[in-house]
Amino acid sequence: MRQDEAQGAGTIFADFVAGTVWADVSAQNHQAKRSILNFFATALGSANDPAVTTALRTLLPFSGAATSAIIGRTERLDALGASFLNAISANLLDFDDTHLDTIIHPTATVAAAVLALAQPRAISGQAVLTAFILGVEVECRVGNAVSPGHYARGWHITSTCGVFGAAAACAKLLDLPASQISNAIGIAASQSAGIIENLPSAAKNVSVGNAARNGLFAALLAAEGYSASPRAIEGPLGWARAMGDEPDMARLTGGLGNTWEIAKNTYKPYPAGIVFHAVIDACFDLRAKLDRRVDEIASVTVQGSSLLLARGDRPVRNERDARVSIHHCAACALLQGTAGVTEFSEAMVVRPDIVALRRKVRAALDPSLPDGAARVIIQLTSGEAFEELVMEAKGSLADPLSDRDIEAKLRDCARLGGTDWDIDRIIDGVWRLETLADVSGLMSARG
Amino acid sequence: MRQDEAQGAGTIFADFVAGTVWADVSAQNHQAKRSILNFFATALGSANDPAVTTALRTLLPFSGAATSAIIGRTERLDALGASFLNAISANLLDFDDTHLDTIIHPTATVAAAVLALAQPRAISGQAVLTAFILGVEVECRVGNAVSPGHYARGWHITSTCGVFGAAAACAKLLDLPASQISNAIGIAASQSAGIIENLPSAAKNVSVGNAARNGLFAALLAAEGYSASPRAIEGPLGWARAMGDEPDMARLTGGLGNTWEIAKNTYKPYPAGIVFHAVIDACFDLRAKLDRRVDEIASVTVQGSSLLLARGDRPVRNERDARVSIHHCAACALLQGTAGVTEFSEAMVVRPDIVALRRKVRAALDPSLPDGAARVIIQLTSGEAFEELVMEAKGSLADPLSDRDIEAKLRDCARLGGTDWDIDRIIDGVWRLETLADVSGLMSARG
Repeated sequence: MRQDEAQGAGTIFADFVAGTVWADVSAQNHQAKRSILNFFATALGSANDPAVTTALRTLLPFSGAATSAIIGRTERLDALGASFLNAISANLLDFDDTHLDTIIHPTATVAAAVLALAQPRAISGQAVLTAFILGVEVECRVGNAVSPGHYARGWHITSTCGVFGAAAACAKLLDLPASQISNAIGIAASQSAGIIENLPSAAKNVSVGNAARNGLFAALLAAEGYSASPRAIEGPLGWARAMGDEPDMARLTGGLGNTWEIAKNTYKPYPAGIVFHAVIDACFDLRAKLDRRVDEIASVTVQGSSLLLARGDRPVRNERDARVSIHHCAACALLQGTAGVTEFSEAMVVRPDIVALRRKVRAALDPSLPDGAARVIIQLTSGEAFEELVMEAKGSLADPLSDRDIEAKLRDCARLGGTDWDIDRIIDGVWRLETLADVSGLMSARG
Repeated sequence: MRQDEAQGAGTIFADFVAGTVWADVSAQNHQAKRSILNFFATALGSANDPAVTTALRTLLPFSGAATSAIIGRTERLDALGASFLNAISANLLDFDDTHLDTIIHPTATVAAAVLALAQPRAISGQAVLTAFILGVEVECRVGNAVSPGHYARGWHITSTCGVFGAAAACAKLLDLPASQISNAIGIAASQSAGIIENLPSAAKNVSVGNAARNGLFAALLAAEGYSASPRAIEGPLGWARAMGDEPDMARLTGGLGNTWEIAKNTYKPYPAGIVFHAVIDACFDLRAKLDRRVDEIASVTVQGSSLLLARGDRPVRNERDARVSIHHCAACALLQGTAGVTEFSEAMVVRPDIVALRRKVRAALDPSLPDGAARVIIQLTSGEAFEELVMEAKGSLADPLSDRDIEAKLRDCARLGGTDWDIDRIIDGVWRLETLADVSGLMSARG
């Protein structure tokens, strides 16, 4: 038996997390900061969303000393409550980052827990970044080990795997010994929950928020001496098999420290389902070609894979529908030339010119196109036709958002979220994160 | 399509819970009070256990206004924290009640949440009993719908189903309309967690505590307007299928209000695995026959089903082993004539005469015996032999504990738990529960 097989995955992860220092992860620093900047963007964008204010109102009477910021707001909660709230706001619009191999949104849960814990303890930026990178590593590896069956079966993988990442990251931030890090990860396995059936409802937020909150809770319990099985993830009656998958041990713990999951993280330019991004990009290109003749459009044909059609060929009744509509994405991109949070707002869903153009959009299968690609063909009333094919959408690994793109996204989100936090200070603070002796200044309106 | 199939289970449960009043459940009053008395017994027995004090120490900095008692102790926490703690202490020794069809310990999670919520709101005993009975009904029906596959696959069913019961009960106690009760049950589905692999560790306590805490949280969120799918339990990407079972819809919601799961609840006379109870009963009978000649025993042979041997034929190194040991159960029953919390303590595990007698015990398969039965044969050094067969152990549905037995169990547990709560007042209060205008007096040392 190899050593890796003799040890539980909890022990292997814990030894890795305990033994990793800043120098080991500093090559991931830039990507980690991009993830955290994108996290602030989406959290600020939802700071005043009713789903956030409702959860805050519910939790306020159940908070201990209010040590940790609710991003974009003036209220604070204890670190457990702030973890819950900030994970919700960061994920709410499905505009947060994506680990494409698993479709985990990795940062919302891990960063929310790490920052809520770090704030009252005045922890350094390097310690926060190290914990964050390790948390994402554990989270995505657990997801890798059970993908693609896990998500397909009905598990909301951002929630179910997020709790492992938050636990590992918080255990690292607390500087726990390896034995207690293993316990934290094992305790996380007993708190992993969240189902796809609830995605179109606010109940989704509860599992996302809990993943952050309970990951931190697992680390706090482990620090006080609570134990867990070192085989909680992969044991015969453990997490993976109960959830329905034979875990892929090589993907779970193989090559730890040689590859980094954070390096594969991607950021959305548009708050729409990721398969619609190529549709939007193609329409932007066509808009330039049309040169203001958008009102002369007779028909728009969007061609793509069966996945694109299954996800996006449907009526649009509200903002949620709009974010997964081929018709709405195409209409907004052509009419507005932008596809930010504004374009997926309720006002835009019912705006007459958008509604009229949506009606001219038709979806058609092209089985030769891969998932994530799209061809758009526009015919004008004059009979003139234009065509654009996009194989790799903006925001994909092949065409990632630039640092300036993410900054612009943050400014756009913050404006729409209606926060009074000092945005320049947040952007500057995140880019200098590894130099900060204390991250707490980042977690408030004025620093 | 029948009406039951057209509606989601969340809606069906919610209509039932919303429409049920005290008169509909008062026939279950006595059994409900027995369950709650047994709940206080086991919670008091663990009031000072390190697992409880550790969790309390962890949660204290994260508690809002301390409104709700930690049973058997002087500290209080907010209602969410108290739900967590009291569910842990009630379940810690595996001495709480058992719903035999599912092996759910139904009361720990539901009563912990209901009482923690009721205390600061000065709610009546009838309202508490109604909510409790309905919560147990929902909890056990969800368990019925996925048994026996669910537990066998690795799910700790007391945790995974407890959250539904706590949510339904708290939603009833909050007097929510049916639409919000459905949302509470659906939110519970996104918080259901807990794995068998962690049972031999403190991580088990976390999923039990969370079931109570998160059930209450689900009801509080629903009351503030959070929504969920009415098909969160049985939908195509819902709880049951994600967990691995095609839900049995007839067992889930069929005949609601005609049968009551609380009526099938059982109470353990001994803090040992339920399959060992027949061994203990047989040894008690043999001890009487031996008439003080226990030191003349040459050998003890315990015969039973393969389940008994699989669970209980193993070395005894600690208290946890002792509670699932054929050898220890037989030795204590023969030597002590009692099998209470004392007999499964660390001191008893290492006591020389117990160790010596344990070594004389041998387990043997008798495939003709059903699970839950045992035959014990004793041979004395003189060659004389005695034999006893127990088919239905004390505490089973066929031979239930009397009310006085449960009272005695509570006194025994309270003494060993080391509480200064007034035990007579608790016993009296529980038996008069349906007459109390305000249950909060029950939740303190002196009333």
